[in-house]
Amino acid sequence: MTNSTFHQPVDAVEVPRFAGHSTFMRLPAVQDATGLDIALVGIPWDGGTTNRAGARHGPREVRNQSSMMRRVHHVTLTEPFSIANIADVGDISVNPIDLLDGLKRIEAGMRAIVEAGAIPLSVGGDHLTTLPVMRAVAAGGPVGMIHFDAHSDTNDTYFGGNPYTHGTPFRRAIEEGLLDPKRTVQIGIRGSIYATDEHDWARAQGIRVIYMEECTRRGIADVMAEARAIAGDGPTYVSFDIDCIDPSMAPGTGTPEIGGFTTREAQALVRELSGVRIVAADVVEVAPPFDVAGMTALAGATILFELLCVIAEGVAARR
Amino acid sequence: MTNSTFHQPVDAVEVPRFAGHSTFMRLPAVQDATGLDIALVGIPWDGGTTNRAGARHGPREVRNQSSMMRRVHHVTLTEPFSIANIADVGDISVNPIDLLDGLKRIEAGMRAIVEAGAIPLSVGGDHLTTLPVMRAVAAGGPVGMIHFDAHSDTNDTYFGGNPYTHGTPFRRAIEEGLLDPKRTVQIGIRGSIYATDEHDWARAQGIRVIYMEECTRRGIADVMAEARAIAGDGPTYVSFDIDCIDPSMAPGTGTPEIGGFTTREAQALVRELSGVRIVAADVVEVAPPFDVAGMTALAGATILFELLCVIAEGVAARR
Amino acid sequence: MTNSTFHQPVDAVEVPRFAGHSTFMRLPAVQDATGLDIALVGIPWDGGTTNRAGARHGPREVRNQSSMMRRVHHVTLTEPFSIANIADVGDISVNPIDLLDGLKRIEAGMRAIVEAGAIPLSVGGDHLTTLPVMRAVAAGGPVGMIHFDAHSDTNDTYFGGNPYTHGTPFRRAIEEGLLDPKRTVQIGIRGSIYATDEHDWARAQGIRVIYMEECTRRGIADVMAEARAIAGDGPTYVSFDIDCIDPSMAPGTGTPEIGGFTTREAQALVRELSGVRIVAADVVEVAPPFDVAGMTALAGATILFELLCVIAEGVAARR
Amino acid sequence: MTNSTFHQPVDAVEVPRFAGHSTFMRLPAVQDATGLDIALVGIPWDGGTTNRAGARHGPREVRNQSSMMRRVHHVTLTEPFSIANIADVGDISVNPIDLLDGLKRIEAGMRAIVEAGAIPLSVGGDHLTTLPVMRAVAAGGPVGMIHFDAHSDTNDTYFGGNPYTHGTPFRRAIEEGLLDPKRTVQIGIRGSIYATDEHDWARAQGIRVIYMEECTRRGIADVMAEARAIAGDGPTYVSFDIDCIDPSMAPGTGTPEIGGFTTREAQALVRELSGVRIVAADVVEVAPPFDVAGMTALAGATILFELLCVIAEGVAARR
Amino acid sequence: MTNSTFHQPVDAVEVPRFAGHSTFMRLPAVQDATGLDIALVGIPWDGGTTNRAGARHGPREVRNQSSMMRRVHHVTLTEPFSIANIADVGDISVNPIDLLDGLKRIEAGMRAIVEAGAIPLSVGGDHLTTLPVMRAVAAGGPVGMIHFDAHSDTNDTYFGGNPYTHGTPFRRAIEEGLLDPKRTVQIGIRGSIYATDEHDWARAQGIRVIYMEECTRRGIADVMAEARAIAGDGPTYVSFDIDCIDPSMAPGTGTPEIGGFTTREAQALVRELSGVRIVAADVVEVAPPFDVAGMTALAGATILFELLCVIAEGVAARR
Amino acid sequence: MTNSTFHQPVDAVEVPRFAGHSTFMRLPAVQDATGLDIALVGIPWDGGTTNRAGARHGPREVRNQSSMMRRVHHVTLTEPFSIANIADVGDISVNPIDLLDGLKRIEAGMRAIVEAGAIPLSVGGDHLTTLPVMRAVAAGGPVGMIHFDAHSDTNDTYFGGNPYTHGTPFRRAIEEGLLDPKRTVQIGIRGSIYATDEHDWARAQGIRVIYMEECTRRGIADVMAEARAIAGDGPTYVSFDIDCIDPSMAPGTGTPEIGGFTTREAQALVRELSGVRIVAADVVEVAPPFDVAGMTALAGATILFELLCVIAEGVAARR
Repeated sequence: MTNSTFHQPVDAVEVPRFAGHSTFMRLPAVQDATGLDIALVGIPWDGGTTNRAGARHGPREVRNQSSMMRRVHHVTLTEPFSIANIADVGDISVNPIDLLDGLKRIEAGMRAIVEAGAIPLSVGGDHLTTLPVMRAVAAGGPVGMIHFDAHSDTNDTYFGGNPYTHGTPFRRAIEEGLLDPKRTVQIGIRGSIYATDEHDWARAQGIRVIYMEECTRRGIADVMAEARAIAGDGPTYVSFDIDCIDPSMAPGTGTPEIGGFTTREAQALVRELSGVRIVAADVVEVAPPFDVAGMTALAGATILFELLCVIAEGVAARR
Repeated sequence: MTNSTFHQPVDAVEVPRFAGHSTFMRLPAVQDATGLDIALVGIPWDGGTTNRAGARHGPREVRNQSSMMRRVHHVTLTEPFSIANIADVGDISVNPIDLLDGLKRIEAGMRAIVEAGAIPLSVGGDHLTTLPVMRAVAAGGPVGMIHFDAHSDTNDTYFGGNPYTHGTPFRRAIEEGLLDPKRTVQIGIRGSIYATDEHDWARAQGIRVIYMEECTRRGIADVMAEARAIAGDGPTYVSFDIDCIDPSMAPGTGTPEIGGFTTREAQALVRELSGVRIVAADVVEVAPPFDVAGMTALAGATILFELLCVIAEGVAARR
Repeated sequence: MTNSTFHQPVDAVEVPRFAGHSTFMRLPAVQDATGLDIALVGIPWDGGTTNRAGARHGPREVRNQSSMMRRVHHVTLTEPFSIANIADVGDISVNPIDLLDGLKRIEAGMRAIVEAGAIPLSVGGDHLTTLPVMRAVAAGGPVGMIHFDAHSDTNDTYFGGNPYTHGTPFRRAIEEGLLDPKRTVQIGIRGSIYATDEHDWARAQGIRVIYMEECTRRGIADVMAEARAIAGDGPTYVSFDIDCIDPSMAPGTGTPEIGGFTTREAQALVRELSGVRIVAADVVEVAPPFDVAGMTALAGATILFELLCVIAEGVAARR
Repeated sequence: MTNSTFHQPVDAVEVPRFAGHSTFMRLPAVQDATGLDIALVGIPWDGGTTNRAGARHGPREVRNQSSMMRRVHHVTLTEPFSIANIADVGDISVNPIDLLDGLKRIEAGMRAIVEAGAIPLSVGGDHLTTLPVMRAVAAGGPVGMIHFDAHSDTNDTYFGGNPYTHGTPFRRAIEEGLLDPKRTVQIGIRGSIYATDEHDWARAQGIRVIYMEECTRRGIADVMAEARAIAGDGPTYVSFDIDCIDPSMAPGTGTPEIGGFTTREAQALVRELSGVRIVAADVVEVAPPFDVAGMTALAGATILFELLCVIAEGVAARR
Repeated sequence: MTNSTFHQPVDAVEVPRFAGHSTFMRLPAVQDATGLDIALVGIPWDGGTTNRAGARHGPREVRNQSSMMRRVHHVTLTEPFSIANIADVGDISVNPIDLLDGLKRIEAGMRAIVEAGAIPLSVGGDHLTTLPVMRAVAAGGPVGMIHFDAHSDTNDTYFGGNPYTHGTPFRRAIEEGLLDPKRTVQIGIRGSIYATDEHDWARAQGIRVIYMEECTRRGIADVMAEARAIAGDGPTYVSFDIDCIDPSMAPGTGTPEIGGFTTREAQALVRELSGVRIVAADVVEVAPPFDVAGMTALAGATILFELLCVIAEGVAARR
Repeated sequence: MTNSTFHQPVDAVEVPRFAGHSTFMRLPAVQDATGLDIALVGIPWDGGTTNRAGARHGPREVRNQSSMMRRVHHVTLTEPFSIANIADVGDISVNPIDLLDGLKRIEAGMRAIVEAGAIPLSVGGDHLTTLPVMRAVAAGGPVGMIHFDAHSDTNDTYFGGNPYTHGTPFRRAIEEGLLDPKRTVQIGIRGSIYATDEHDWARAQGIRVIYMEECTRRGIADVMAEARAIAGDGPTYVSFDIDCIDPSMAPGTGTPEIGGFTTREAQALVRELSGVRIVAADVVEVAPPFDVAGMTALAGATILFELLCVIAEGVAARR
């Protein structure tokens, strides 16, 4: 299955990690997604952020920290760069001051990747970016979703009626027919809420909301078995909000909630995605201005690598 | 039970979290505790600190981070602001350079709250602040205590005879008849000690000292069942020293000890207080000059919210 | 001229600076501007920021650092709180995710202050906030402006046609008839530019653009004499972008340019405003997520105090 | 067994922790190891670091944070300073710019300690420092090793043939006959790898490589029982790379890998060394320039204390 | 004049700066001041601090940063270690929680140094430490003072009557007859003040108060000529409060005031002390918890070296 | 002179500064220097650092901060990208653990650039990198040098005889006939020195050493007129060590010395290079692990832009 023409990362045994231009996984930077199986792409946009902005700086720092990744997954022995053609296609051209234009640009940029036949694995940006990505990815019909997050992000409106914020993407996605709520599961939800019925709308649509406390009680493997069953065999979006991880391990995010997953658990969560038919995935809400010691960006980069391995396995299996 | 005249926090769906004056939980600032069920109060004083000062800055930063709290507890669905009248009564007027005057001022300030009929939920400040709070709270007789901490704080004297430091409050409280050692339990104690018999005095008084290692072995639920049994039905003080949490999750404190509780465990600890007759509670030793990314203050604010929910439930149950 | 009913700040010889609720200059928080000569107001909004957001957090941190201010200016011996009635009227209610709604809310909030008869002294927020403030202040006719900044902020559009960013407010203000370019001077402009003719539009309107290098050569007193002559006797807006100060002294800002004013020079600049008929003033672009050790917020708070003294002198003189 | 002539640390109940010259455990600084049972020694050298240097600053900050240690282990009640003669013998004189000279100097310095009859407990420095220490310690024959690390450090060469880096010490030690691979166990290995066969060489030599995931599955006690069995009764080196701990708890290191041990687990790991015949031990890869809030140095200092207790018990038992 | 038996610092061309135990100027640590011309001594105490504590940590960090100093002053070519016998006598044993005991201990510790015949050059600690130092130094009669500071520190009382704070030492020193106000000059005073007559008491005693603005206008040389004339030939104390330097260059201090001296000016100020008969000197108010990148401690260490050169020159001249 | 085929930077009015891959000045990344007038190149190597390493990370962070640069110099109106063909040729492939191999690799990499006919403008790396650059640049005969630095870097050996460190490059360069000392001037030298004769060797060779104090006294213009006269018309190397700037403005460096140039002065220094025949230039010693808020990298990037403008003017003039 290995193809010697696939893009390869720079080898840190030859060129130290701090040297050279910074790209995702030290892969080549390419102009477009043609010929790629998986396109790593940045979405430096946080126009939907209601509290602390900064996720616009996420792609740059995740790229920097992804220089720590090597070629092989030590547990699964997956070699993503040998079994799939992967590259860094750069950042979507965004508009930081115009929300609706920003959404359009992201959708257009992602549509180009999807139409080129690549699976987009994107790095946000705030969680509203997932909405235009879904508009591109779910053009042919709704997707399911396995969603790791501290927040359900299914609120209705903010600030006197604004429908588009990073707290509302999945309500909009369901309303627009992009997301199949019956094939959607949210994992790690926690933190104080606005109202006792805050998650009722999500549940009424059929979304399965699994609180952090339930994860602690049941364990990762059991929860993920349920998640895989919910997603089923259909096309599935995986959205990983870095704030599902505890803020001591991922402080660089806009809406931290204590009591989250450890990174060890987060890695286990992603590894349990094996076999899911992932059509797109993202890591969002890494906000470097609030980070310390690059630890959030490193966590984001490592989760990105974990997702890459799982997706590449699927690519190879379906080839 | 809901009373529409109760104070309500500013709603972040209308006014963003970074806007407006900073108060505990975004509640109104009121002049005194009259009419309140629970008084949130700051004690910006660290005059008893033997190593790294800074807890004097705790109330301000806990207020700032408490702007992240919302109205409802996501697990218990408790709505503290609907079932109890709660407000921010400001900070006790302290004296940073005179230990004895500091103790007097804190006692006087807390006495006013207690006499107004409100349950004080205070934010320190170092742990010596608990002593004058107890002098106010236990005026009518000794209280029991459920105490979360890395340290027993039952030493005798420091620096050639000083009886009042943040390492001695509970020895003084027992000596003064404020604290009933037989109804006292200390949870999470750990770290190297001065002498093999360091905790013998506490145990001889009847205090139950539960080391971190025992908590790990037995689990939160079991330990807390014992704690509730020890506290019994009597009036109980809950003291939460932020250094019971691991310093990677709460680095902003004066005497960090590795190997502590996770915030997830800390939340579970507090939730297990349900049913305890809490007459006063505190969160102490948040020292912002040593914090990173506000994570200690956020942990403190969230624990404050957890305590608030438990206390409000009790208020409503007893109404 | 002293009026014993004027609002007074908390005295740090009685209550330490770290204690109590945080307001501008430790003044009382009031609900509206009625009866005030000068209204200190926050505008926590950075919706026009094209690069690094964060000025939305400016008012909170400037409030915190303003606790370092005392009652009397040590050089001029001005006692602002004795000669003018001043208070903290809180923050404008903003909308962080909708640029046009944000502009409207700021204008409305500022209009209320102006109509109450108070001079608004606002703390941003990014520099686009000055546009809606001017819409409120210059309702009766265009104002002049003395503008301290590294950037002229008279660009036309960004990102394919957006007319409203923090790089365009003064072009818009001139187009809308709010700002009289012939009575406008920009001081401290520096840094690489987009095009050789970047400042030609401003100059063609009659704006006097004084580069940093000219300030260094001529000295503060000479430059400010010219500035006062340009502003003349008419109503004048003073806008102080914190990035006019060197980024080593004010790192917490979105668009730092090395080679700026020292804080010593900045204080001298503001003191030279004495006698100017200031109808409104602001300190903008303090972005705490990029600050270190609170030094930018402290510089902002001190400049705010300097402006307050100059404005209060004018109030007293005109009374 | 207690000997009143043993060196004793400064008592923090008499002299506050922030006062006085900084030494390991606040012990006396002595010129050489004569008469000591255990010599605490710094090796401020990171000449073998392939990515982020900084471990050269490790000894100074570990000394600073070790001022937080007290005299008695709270679980085992071991009093290391009463049962063994321990002191701080200072830092090895190193050469930061000459790798081979650096290795020679470290070996010579450690040889002096070993020949004086003391067990060296060293603080690095990067992991290449362990090689020259082993050259001194294993002069009489190969040692076994219990090795806590995220990385196996058994690579062959870097950068076109360099045999000496912090990624290669244990391959060199085996080749040089210093380390008995059949008595060697590596615990906590994790993170992406360069090649699927990366650990095959180590396994082929007989090293037991226990991945982090296996530790999670089996638990600390079980893994350490196996480790003790592997080390057996022979002379054993204990090497503790701080990056075995999760980077949220030990960010100050050169090659962080998420998903590591908690400090609570790390303490348990070291306590399970009881009974092992430790002839030398180290704590390496603490890199203060990348640390936050001193938490990595504090973790390193506490692990150093845990190791000290275990080694002192052995000293006392064999006396 | 050179004496080969004088203590010498470790040479960084042989032992790198990051290696070895940390002492002032890398000099030997000695037990007492006997035989020394100049005793470098730490006073880790901030019990008089009214706002942000932290100067207790000053000596440790100034020691660390003083490892950057070399043997010869590049402008004056003074070689302090060749012309005077200098060593680090450690820290005064302090009491962090008892103000009056703290003052007594400092006085006693300093008296020992003075009685041993050494000139004390101390590192605070907050500015109240200067009072007990003066009690030791001025036992034989009042001293003059050249005082660099942002604040006059001649207030009367705080917090309802406390006479001893870091804002009051020089009023107390004058009242106690330790300080001759007619031979006292304060340089760099600035920042908002409590009352228009704040400095009147000082001036009434005869102290010459030179504001920052006057220093800017007249220049360093002219101001210092006046200062030398005021001090005259009598015994003179030099007190250097690090907050006389601008907070962008010395952020790690408790009461920062913008608009201060640059470090370049500060060095020039100290060099102009040549010829003054200095009987004791200090560098105070370095508060590491508020520092960034060690820059305040480095500034403090360099000023300490500058003072050391000037004092050593005097020692040699009078030998 | 403008050539429409020249490489152009990404325009921040179209693509925000935080978006896209990070290159010097947002220029295209090219594989080699063929066809370029000026090659921007990184040398991520600090193998010669005797104290605090970290300059290996310099190129990456200078690239990041150079995204703040625009197209035109605001004072000279130079448009470097219109008058010269400029691109980012990436980083030299280095060896972080082998000093001599590192020097060879740098020389080889730079030789390729020089032989392609481009003027190298490099970003270090520590100052030892200048030696191999000179070996490449001065192949045809010695160059003159205008050198901005706190240190002369003309020491002989370190650590018992090592000839190659970042304190020795210019002694080696003179010995190797690469540098003409009579055409060499060092500007801004300051800080304590190892010996009174430390700079005598340099002066004996004919180097003109201008201390910081002389710069302050004479002013930038006068000093630079002398510098230009010393360099004359011959080929000249410009070396800008970031530590010539004050550590409050450039804290991210290995050997900070207080009392340095302001960035305003530094910009003036570089602008005065106009007319000098620059054959190569560098910005060295930016060490991001010690930086705060990216301010050192921003200063480095801006100085890089200033140098680029001066060099491009020369290129255009000589075309």
